[in-house]
Amino acid sequence: MSDMELPPSLSIYGNEKIAKNILSRIWGKRGVFTCTVANTLTSTIPGISDAGDTPELTMFTPAADAELLVLGKTVCMKGIPINPGGIPTPATLTKAALEISRMPFFIVNGGCRVRPNLPCIEMEGECGNYVTSGRSVSNVRKVFDNGVILGKMLSHGSDFVVVSESCAGGTTTALAVLLAMGVVKENLVSSSSPNNPRELKMRTVTEGLKAAGIGIGDLSDDPLRAIECVGDPMMPANVGIIIGAAKKVPVIVGGGTQMAAVIAAAVKLDPSIVGNIFQGTTRWLMEDPNSSMAKIMDSISPDIPIVYVNMDYSSSPYEGLQAYEWGYIKEGVGCGGSSVAAIIQSAGEVTCMGLLDKVHEIYRKLMNFD
Amino acid sequence: MSDMELPPSLSIYGNEKIAKNILSRIWGKRGVFTCTVANTLTSTIPGISDAGDTPELTMFTPAADAELLVLGKTVCMKGIPINPGGIPTPATLTKAALEISRMPFFIVNGGCRVRPNLPCIEMEGECGNYVTSGRSVSNVRKVFDNGVILGKMLSHGSDFVVVSESCAGGTTTALAVLLAMGVVKENLVSSSSPNNPRELKMRTVTEGLKAAGIGIGDLSDDPLRAIECVGDPMMPANVGIIIGAAKKVPVIVGGGTQMAAVIAAAVKLDPSIVGNIFQGTTRWLMEDPNSSMAKIMDSISPDIPIVYVNMDYSSSPYEGLQAYEWGYIKEGVGCGGSSVAAIIQSAGEVTCMGLLDKVHEIYRKLMNFD
Repeated sequence: MSDMELPPSLSIYGNEKIAKNILSRIWGKRGVFTCTVANTLTSTIPGISDAGDTPELTMFTPAADAELLVLGKTVCMKGIPINPGGIPTPATLTKAALEISRMPFFIVNGGCRVRPNLPCIEMEGECGNYVTSGRSVSNVRKVFDNGVILGKMLSHGSDFVVVSESCAGGTTTALAVLLAMGVVKENLVSSSSPNNPRELKMRTVTEGLKAAGIGIGDLSDDPLRAIECVGDPMMPANVGIIIGAAKKVPVIVGGGTQMAAVIAAAVKLDPSIVGNIFQGTTRWLMEDPNSSMAKIMDSISPDIPIVYVNMDYSSSPYEGLQAYEWGYIKEGVGCGGSSVAAIIQSAGEVTCMGLLDKVHEIYRKLMNFD
Repeated sequence: MSDMELPPSLSIYGNEKIAKNILSRIWGKRGVFTCTVANTLTSTIPGISDAGDTPELTMFTPAADAELLVLGKTVCMKGIPINPGGIPTPATLTKAALEISRMPFFIVNGGCRVRPNLPCIEMEGECGNYVTSGRSVSNVRKVFDNGVILGKMLSHGSDFVVVSESCAGGTTTALAVLLAMGVVKENLVSSSSPNNPRELKMRTVTEGLKAAGIGIGDLSDDPLRAIECVGDPMMPANVGIIIGAAKKVPVIVGGGTQMAAVIAAAVKLDPSIVGNIFQGTTRWLMEDPNSSMAKIMDSISPDIPIVYVNMDYSSSPYEGLQAYEWGYIKEGVGCGGSSVAAIIQSAGEVTCMGLLDKVHEIYRKLMNFD
C-alpha cells in the first residue's frame, strides 16, 4: 500500500515516502476532527486581521465559526463570518467535509473572550493579550497538559486525529513564535487577504519580541515560553493534542502558517512524533505567492510532509467563493485538513467535486439563496 | 435480526421486542461513551451518600472517577474513590469496558465544585445546592440546551451513544424528582450501601419538596422545573444529551435509579424518543432487594426496556470486589451501560469473563498489588 496511487483530489509536498506511509495506514479508516477556537487581542489591532468585517468583529469570528460548524448558524453575532467584501468563512468547506464524511467532531476552547454558544471541550485557557505586550498567553503549561490528555483520549477510540484552529490574528502570533524559535528569520507567513500586510505584521511582532526581551532564535529550545511571550491561546492546546495523539495514531495538522508554528513547537518538545504527522491544507495556501508554507515546513523538518486538497472554486457561480481563487482566505477552521480527512476516510470516494457541490448547498442555505 | 439470540452475558427486562429491535440495529456497530460528572451539596448531608469515605469526600468522588477513567489514576485526591470498607468505585468496571472495546469516551461537566483535572466537555452548569433548599439547580435551561446540542454532535459520528453519570447524593435527588413528577409515590430508589438509608432519604426529600412548595406529582408536566427545585446538575445535561442523540441514533442510558429520573424527564419532554432508548445496567442493581428498578421503569413507560450485564464477582479473589455480590455499589459511572455497550460493539465477542479479567488487572494496578 505504500506505492498507493493518490486520487487527483490530493497532492503531496515534501517527503512523499512518509506521506504515503501515513496515508496507507489510515486509508479508509475512521478519524475524529477537532477545531480549537481562541481569541487574541492582537486581532483587534487595526490592519492585522481581515478575519471579520471590522477589527472588533474579529473577536467574534472563532465563536461564529464554531457555531456554524455545530449549529449550522451563528448565534453570537448576526450573519456569518465574512471577510470585507462578503467572502464567506472557510468553515463552509469544513462543514461540507464533516457532513459528507460524517466524521465525529468537537470544538476545543483554547481561550475565548467570546465563547461559542455550544458545549466545548474546555482547556482552561484565557483570551490572549496583545502580542505587543510580550506577555501574550497565560496558563500555558496547564493548557498544554490538558491538550496532551485530550490527544490521548482522542487516539483511544479513533484511527487518526485531525487538529485545526480558528483564531483571528493567528498568523501574526505564528510569525512571532516562529521568529522566537528561529524557525524563520523573515516574514514568510500568510494572510486571509491577498494584500498581506507584511510590514505591519513584522513591526507588530518586532515590538512584541522586544517587549519580551527576546531576539530571533533565542527560544529555539523553549517553545512553550515562546508561546507564553508572543503566541496565542490556540497554540498550547493544539501542541498538546498533537503530542498526546501522535504517540498512538497518525495526526493530520489542518491549517496554514498558524499551524506551522504549532508543528514547530510540537516537534521540538517531542521529536518522536515525526513520521506520524503531516500537515493537511489547501491548494490555495500552497499556491499563495505571498507566503511560503513549503519553505517554513522545510525549515522545521524535512520529514513532515504536506498533503493538500485540490479544491478549485473558479467554476463556482458565486463571487464570494470565486474570491478564494483570487487569493482571499485560503485556509482556516481546518478546511484543508477536514477535506483531506474526508477523502482519506472514504478511501477516495469523496472528491473535490463532491465537496464543491456540498459547499454550494451550504453556502446557498447560509446566504438564504434557496 | 430481531429474533437475535442474546449472548449469556446480557439479559433483558421489560419490552423484549423493543430491546431486541434496538440491539439488532447497533449490534457490531460503533458507539461513543459519555460520563457526566456533577456535585450536589446534598451528598454532604451525613448519612445520605456512601460514595466516599466521609460525607466531605463525596464531593471529590465524581472528579476522582473521571480522572480514573481518563488518566488511570486520581489527581484531585489521594487514593481511589472507595466506599467505607474499601470497596472500589464501579469506575473500575467502566474502565475495563472502555479499554476492551476501545470505545471513544468523553467526560461531561454538568456542574462540579471539584473539577476533574482533565479536559471536560463544558455544559456551563454549577454545583448543586442542598435538595432541602428547594432551589437545587441553577442554569437548568442553558445546560439542557447544551445537552441537546451535544447529543446531536455525538450522534453525527457514531452509531449509538451511551450516557452515564457520577454524582454522589444522586439517588436522593432522583427520588425527589421522581416524586415531584409523580412517577413514584414512595421510596423505590437504590443506594450504594446495602443498608439503604431509606427513611433519612425520604425525610430529606420531603423537606426539599416542602421548601419548593411542591406536592407529589405537581410537576408531572414540567420536568425541568422539578430538576431546578429538587434535582442535581447531572440531570439537565443528560436529559438534553438523550433527547439530542436519540432523534438520530439509539441511546443506552447507563445507570441505576439516578438515571431513571433522567429518563422520566427526557421521555416527558420528548415522547418520540421511546423506541430508540433503553437503560443499560447491571445484574447487581436488578437483583437489589432494597430498590425496584423494574417497578420504576414500568411506571415511566412500558416501552423502555432494560438491558443488563450479568457480571458476577463472587469468584473474584478480592474481597473489595466480592462485596459487589453482598449488595454494595451495584451501579455508577456507567459501569453497566459501558459493559453492555462493549458487548454490543464487539457483536458479543466481549463477555463477562473477559471483562472480569480486565477488572482484576485494573484493580491490581490501582491497589498496587502487582
